[in-house]
Amino acid sequence: MQYSSRYLEDLVERLALLPTIGKKTAQRLAFHLLKTDEQEALALALAIQRVRTEVGVCEVCGNIAETQPCYICGDARRDKSVLCVVEQPGDVVAVEKSGAFRGQYHVLRGALSPLDGVGPEDLRIAELSRRLDEGGIGEVIVATNPTAQGEATAHYLHELLSARELRITRIARGIPVGADLELSDQVTLARALEGRKEMD
Amino acid sequence: MQYSSRYLEDLVERLALLPTIGKKTAQRLAFHLLKTDEQEALALALAIQRVRTEVGVCEVCGNIAETQPCYICGDARRDKSVLCVVEQPGDVVAVEKSGAFRGQYHVLRGALSPLDGVGPEDLRIAELSRRLDEGGIGEVIVATNPTAQGEATAHYLHELLSARELRITRIARGIPVGADLELSDQVTLARALEGRKEMD
Repeated sequence: MQYSSRYLEDLVERLALLPTIGKKTAQRLAFHLLKTDEQEALALALAIQRVRTEVGVCEVCGNIAETQPCYICGDARRDKSVLCVVEQPGDVVAVEKSGAFRGQYHVLRGALSPLDGVGPEDLRIAELSRRLDEGGIGEVIVATNPTAQGEATAHYLHELLSARELRITRIARGIPVGADLELSDQVTLARALEGRKEMD
Repeated sequence: MQYSSRYLEDLVERLALLPTIGKKTAQRLAFHLLKTDEQEALALALAIQRVRTEVGVCEVCGNIAETQPCYICGDARRDKSVLCVVEQPGDVVAVEKSGAFRGQYHVLRGALSPLDGVGPEDLRIAELSRRLDEGGIGEVIVATNPTAQGEATAHYLHELLSARELRITRIARGIPVGADLELSDQVTLARALEGRKEMD
């Protein structure tokens, strides 16, 4: 045992499983949690528990939600005729932060990746088709990441939806190719939304 | 609300309170905790709770412990005549990892820092004197950090303990193994020169 408490050791090991957290940072965080205000530490534990027990998925858009539908799908002030299709819930956060979009979202929960065995049936594409069948949507903005998988997904969606009476647009490559939508700055993302073009 | 769930928002905010974790990393960790295996996420929450509810302080050495005394103080195979005095529990972990010490520890739980209002009575120095009063200790290795506060603490301990029949030593300060002389700061280099030893 490296640490004088197996509970401390357990905490360090569990923190080190998190992305971007190495062994040294995990140790630093564990000592911080031991030393900091007890209520603060326990509140973090509770916050982790609650996102796993209380938070679900919006049946309409597939975003993270604790209500059905989520607060965006249920917001009457938002434009229901424009649908922004993204890969992940984090992408919704990024687009919302840009302040350049007031329509609705559809979260695919991934991108096509044949090499990883991710096909259309693994994404929320059937749900997207059903939403479009219900009518009232005039434009689909394809805001998947400008990566190989994101572009493949955009291409697939364009093929799938081109028979419909829809404007199908793709966000502009104001975002550096190879980067992650979730990590883009707000201005770049706002520009990308403004510069969207018809898919052909 | 930036996120589609206030529980998610709460988790991001609480993670961002941790040292070295910025807002973007906090968001990434929160999404990871939402997506990862549920048992893994809940185990992390439990690990945080347990270090705050089950883990205490060893009454002998002041280290983090879940038993009284801690497993190091209770280990009969360790040399009870040498005491290594460190600032924090993390320093015990570092010295243990070096594998170069098989004695006992005394954790001060800080260093003297008059500007921050930290005096001798705020550290576990009275407990150190009581341990020395009990006898059996022949050497005290002062292993506080080679910082202004650590040096001040080392100096204070030397003054306090010099009347006792004890060997009082200070860990060597010099160039770190594997480091570049050219890139070392002047103070470290001066210390390394002062602390030079005969080659044999």
